Amino acid sequence: MALWDRLSSVETALLHTIFWSAGASRWDLAERLGYSKSKTNSLVASLLDVGLLEETGLAGSTGGRRPETVQLSQRLGVLIGADLGATSLDLAILRPDLSVLARRTEAADVRAGPGVVMARVRVLMRELLAECGATAQQVIGIGMGVPGPVDFESGQLVNPPLMPHWDSFSIRDYLREEYAAPVFVDNDVNLMALGELWRLQRSLQNFLVIKVGTGIGCGIVCHGEVYRGANGSAGDVGHICVDTAGPRCHCGNLGCVETMAAGPAITRMALEAAESGESALLAAVLADKGAISPEDVGQASRHGDAAANRIIQHTGNLIGQMLASVVNFFNPSHVFIGGGITRIGPLFLASVRQSIYQRSLALSTRHLEIHYTPLAEQAGLVGAGVLAMQETLKSKGSTR
Amino acid sequence: MALWDRLSSVETALLHTIFWSAGASRWDLAERLGYSKSKTNSLVASLLDVGLLEETGLAGSTGGRRPETVQLSQRLGVLIGADLGATSLDLAILRPDLSVLARRTEAADVRAGPGVVMARVRVLMRELLAECGATAQQVIGIGMGVPGPVDFESGQLVNPPLMPHWDSFSIRDYLREEYAAPVFVDNDVNLMALGELWRLQRSLQNFLVIKVGTGIGCGIVCHGEVYRGANGSAGDVGHICVDTAGPRCHCGNLGCVETMAAGPAITRMALEAAESGESALLAAVLADKGAISPEDVGQASRHGDAAANRIIQHTGNLIGQMLASVVNFFNPSHVFIGGGITRIGPLFLASVRQSIYQRSLALSTRHLEIHYTPLAEQAGLVGAGVLAMQETLKSKGSTR
Repeated sequence: MALWDRLSSVETALLHTIFWSAGASRWDLAERLGYSKSKTNSLVASLLDVGLLEETGLAGSTGGRRPETVQLSQRLGVLIGADLGATSLDLAILRPDLSVLARRTEAADVRAGPGVVMARVRVLMRELLAECGATAQQVIGIGMGVPGPVDFESGQLVNPPLMPHWDSFSIRDYLREEYAAPVFVDNDVNLMALGELWRLQRSLQNFLVIKVGTGIGCGIVCHGEVYRGANGSAGDVGHICVDTAGPRCHCGNLGCVETMAAGPAITRMALEAAESGESALLAAVLADKGAISPEDVGQASRHGDAAANRIIQHTGNLIGQMLASVVNFFNPSHVFIGGGITRIGPLFLASVRQSIYQRSLALSTRHLEIHYTPLAEQAGLVGAGVLAMQETLKSKGSTR
Repeated sequence: MALWDRLSSVETALLHTIFWSAGASRWDLAERLGYSKSKTNSLVASLLDVGLLEETGLAGSTGGRRPETVQLSQRLGVLIGADLGATSLDLAILRPDLSVLARRTEAADVRAGPGVVMARVRVLMRELLAECGATAQQVIGIGMGVPGPVDFESGQLVNPPLMPHWDSFSIRDYLREEYAAPVFVDNDVNLMALGELWRLQRSLQNFLVIKVGTGIGCGIVCHGEVYRGANGSAGDVGHICVDTAGPRCHCGNLGCVETMAAGPAITRMALEAAESGESALLAAVLADKGAISPEDVGQASRHGDAAANRIIQHTGNLIGQMLASVVNFFNPSHVFIGGGITRIGPLFLASVRQSIYQRSLALSTRHLEIHYTPLAEQAGLVGAGVLAMQETLKSKGSTR
């Protein structure tokens, strides 16, 4: 966009700060950036002039003149955020301040391979852009999350265990044919962590986001930044061992938490309970639908089914046991639990907490808070938007 | 020290860079700090003038005029570094560039409590200062490592399991009576990590240092900085579970790696092998000395004793199993193994490696390097010196 092709590093820093504050008053900005009020005022004025910023009403007053807030201007264009899960696809067109203009969520199967899935992504992008009257030329950045390890620099998937046909596939190259905007790709759990970090306006410096679905992954925020590790595989906690005598995982080792406590394990235990006659309720579900989902187990638990309760507690305990190791090592201030399966009832979170508090050291858990992800099922999509905007801003100039 | 009481933030940044480069040429400095050559030259000249820097001969030439390097001046004063282990005390007087002027290492027992141990620390500090002709007034910073969790801001120990009488003891207040210089305290393994980070001149951004001794701890370097966690207990890996059916640890849980694989566990297994008649060699050691140390096990292994080999392999495998979880989570580029016990023979490191490579994901271990700590038994002491110098510099002005 011609609007911002000649930004100074000071201007870029100001835009970053405004984006990460979800809008801010001139007074806040002066304080956060350590600039004088007059310097901040004149910077903001010139960025308002060229159309990079816009005024957005009044912030809460603390007495005296009420400060007007500024935010990134809608005139900059739009962002596309996409959150691809193992079995779902969530896509949105967002304003630069991450408010949603159009959104679509639907079932998807990543095992179908990049040809099928990305063709659908492309169609949805076009439809949603049309829905909000925007063109491909107005897109300023694209962020996408995928359920596998990503080499962040190249944007390519690396040996993704849940996405067998995607190894070395370049989402960036694929979308480049249609969009001039830069494309950024990251692991879905990293994007959940990035989304929560943005929502918290960086008020927490060291926390974890756990996603339990078909697999189990962890997003890490360290020193106020998403930490991706030496090869982009940090947070790959699904293959941490929780039972040295446990069943064999597809990775070749015994007792990985993912093979014992993720979605497929819950389904397997529920089938056993249905077939053995342990649970009449789950047997009825099986007879009715021919299959049992983790959601059915949650439903049965809410009806007081003892087998369903046992399965949920067992699963929560195993995940908590894995997290106890991680908490001892990382000493985060918060652990946020997300992913559809974790909402299968209050017993789940209680079991995770019990297991962590029992197995972690007192010092690590004295102030530790364990909650569901505040952004719930939106965390990944918000994170995709943050990635798109943040990396696009970075590419426009040097940052602080 | 009056020498540096009015430093600008630019000057402080220059001093930090010189310290972390272990001396640097003006050309290097200009490049690293992004300053022009003329600005760098004039900054260096003024700091040479006031005696904060000194010239130190010639750096390796790459053609053209050979660049002279500068380093922090000896005229600044001296640092004291102290590395207190569970059973040892290592103390040194260091120049600002961390070259050692005087050093003393001796046995110590932290369980004797802070009164006894710190009185000895104070005596040694006085003796070593006298040895190199320095006074307490010339000390510009003191850094000390301790084998327990530390609240870094206050410098106090927090519930240290190996140091029962030290809870809430303030090393800082104790030394303040004798030294005007600031005192900085940190966990011993964090200081090993800081020492290695300095030696590497920050060329690695994400690595781990494991110390195996009476306990097992881990220093974490993340985004090029030592990471201490939300409450200063990050890296407390000794109580990660490696066997859900293992023996009970003093922390109350079952199968903690520390209770199964640290020094006392090695001694216990060796005693069993001696008393059961499994190892004639270890039985002879026991008869001769009335006790067996981990070093004796190493010695027996080097003589081909099968029981000693089995103990070492078992220990290395358990530590590797714990590290596999940590590597999956953190995806470091390097794991450095340190602490006296880890040098009990080549079988130990081989077993650790085997266990990590077997249990960690391929992507996490593809480029992972596992070595002994390059600074060996000096890592903690060097780290204490780095802490003293770095934090003293920070206290003199704002950093970059």
